[in-house]
Amino acid sequence: MTFEFDRQIAVSRESKHAYTADLYPGWVVGGGLNGGYLLSVLGNAIKRTFPDKPDPVALSAYYLSASKPGQARIEIEPLRDGGTISTVSASLTQDGVARITALASYGDLDKLGDDVGTTAEPPSIPPVDECVPNTFAPPELLKIAPLMQRFDMRFHPQHVGWAVGSPSGRGELCAWFKLADGREPDPISLLTVVDALPPVTFDLGVIGWAPTIELTAHVRAKPAPGWLTVRHATRNLAGGMFEEDCEVWDSAGRLVAQSRQLARQPRGMR
Amino acid sequence: MTFEFDRQIAVSRESKHAYTADLYPGWVVGGGLNGGYLLSVLGNAIKRTFPDKPDPVALSAYYLSASKPGQARIEIEPLRDGGTISTVSASLTQDGVARITALASYGDLDKLGDDVGTTAEPPSIPPVDECVPNTFAPPELLKIAPLMQRFDMRFHPQHVGWAVGSPSGRGELCAWFKLADGREPDPISLLTVVDALPPVTFDLGVIGWAPTIELTAHVRAKPAPGWLTVRHATRNLAGGMFEEDCEVWDSAGRLVAQSRQLARQPRGMR
Repeated sequence: MTFEFDRQIAVSRESKHAYTADLYPGWVVGGGLNGGYLLSVLGNAIKRTFPDKPDPVALSAYYLSASKPGQARIEIEPLRDGGTISTVSASLTQDGVARITALASYGDLDKLGDDVGTTAEPPSIPPVDECVPNTFAPPELLKIAPLMQRFDMRFHPQHVGWAVGSPSGRGELCAWFKLADGREPDPISLLTVVDALPPVTFDLGVIGWAPTIELTAHVRAKPAPGWLTVRHATRNLAGGMFEEDCEVWDSAGRLVAQSRQLARQPRGMR
Repeated sequence: MTFEFDRQIAVSRESKHAYTADLYPGWVVGGGLNGGYLLSVLGNAIKRTFPDKPDPVALSAYYLSASKPGQARIEIEPLRDGGTISTVSASLTQDGVARITALASYGDLDKLGDDVGTTAEPPSIPPVDECVPNTFAPPELLKIAPLMQRFDMRFHPQHVGWAVGSPSGRGELCAWFKLADGREPDPISLLTVVDALPPVTFDLGVIGWAPTIELTAHVRAKPAPGWLTVRHATRNLAGGMFEEDCEVWDSAGRLVAQSRQLARQPRGMR
């Protein structure tokens, strides 16, 4: 395989519905592996369950404990093989400890029809060259987030105030996104993209890891090659939790993924 | 029990993690029982799993086949009993046929802390008396939707154009909401509320049942007694599917639930 991303999300089939994976240390952030990366690993295993339905359409993951680099086991239970949509439950464990439990509906995005009627608008973000690359991230962030080296991200200049101690307070982060190895986006990599940016709480001045309780992603179309634009936003912080909505748009201007997660507010270093 | 809603969502414990329920015909809409009602039944069973964590915080349901009135069986598998949040998988079956599979995280909403920082704003809707009651719904709708009699809903006058053949085309439905029997809202009934209004596609002129593929609800706070306000909105119809976002606000002006579902577009009678 040419691309590091494909090697890092690779799974080996052990039996009809069980797989192993070797989780890559380069996806560590804070106290564990990035949740989006884990979704791509899980999604890559589920992809093999229904040969005629290779694409995630909806995937809901509940995070039970922090994953570590190294061996993991994925078990899949097919629940319904429908006409256009089939559904499974799936779990990822390490040494018998449950890390993620998930439900997912898969289909063939090429066969869903090409009708689009949308009032959604792509995020307003300056051209790539005028945005701030993630390689400019402060050293303390790169240290807790080796995963930053997996991406080429270019942040909206007005959304990186947190890096210099003046967050906007709006609860919004927009960035251009590519995998660092040049691999083009596909429905499986979009599962990583929806949880790749720093927590949107950074833009509220709370710098810290925000553990995900639940994340649901909808893949709405196959992405065109090239840069993606990603927008994270939150509106409601309450009871120590916040929702983080994410949209991913492709280079052809199509909304290709939507996700929402419920996460715990980081204790932070406000 | 005083209230019909409590009788209709009641479950009987069969064994430690198995329950039966008698699904009530009054919740039929289109080809099956209302998805929100089923979530309240399921949520009511899960409520008994962790005595110190009675409230749904996040619940994701995948709809496998249409439920019918009558006997149902609910099985719950506890996955992790955490400090403040515990997680289960749950399924609802009828005569051995899977209807819904779900994952849920429960907690104690009273113990989550009372911090609220929000930029979300309640829906703009005229006073209850100036809104359009659901009893004014067209007869053909009441016929396919007996569930309309379970609610006292008062629609924003500008969001009911679909009832007289002139939908706004905005993809938005707002209404005041109460259960018809006067039962006050709680975290379990909010699971019904997030899927109680007609599909938001009505406001786009597509009148028909929109089967849910997946619905995730986050209960963000215990609702205060009184009228709720509910807002459904969609932005992206593509590939025969659409997302429906729902917000529920309580009488104290607090955002108490957020949900998103991915549904199939109704074939409709445009």
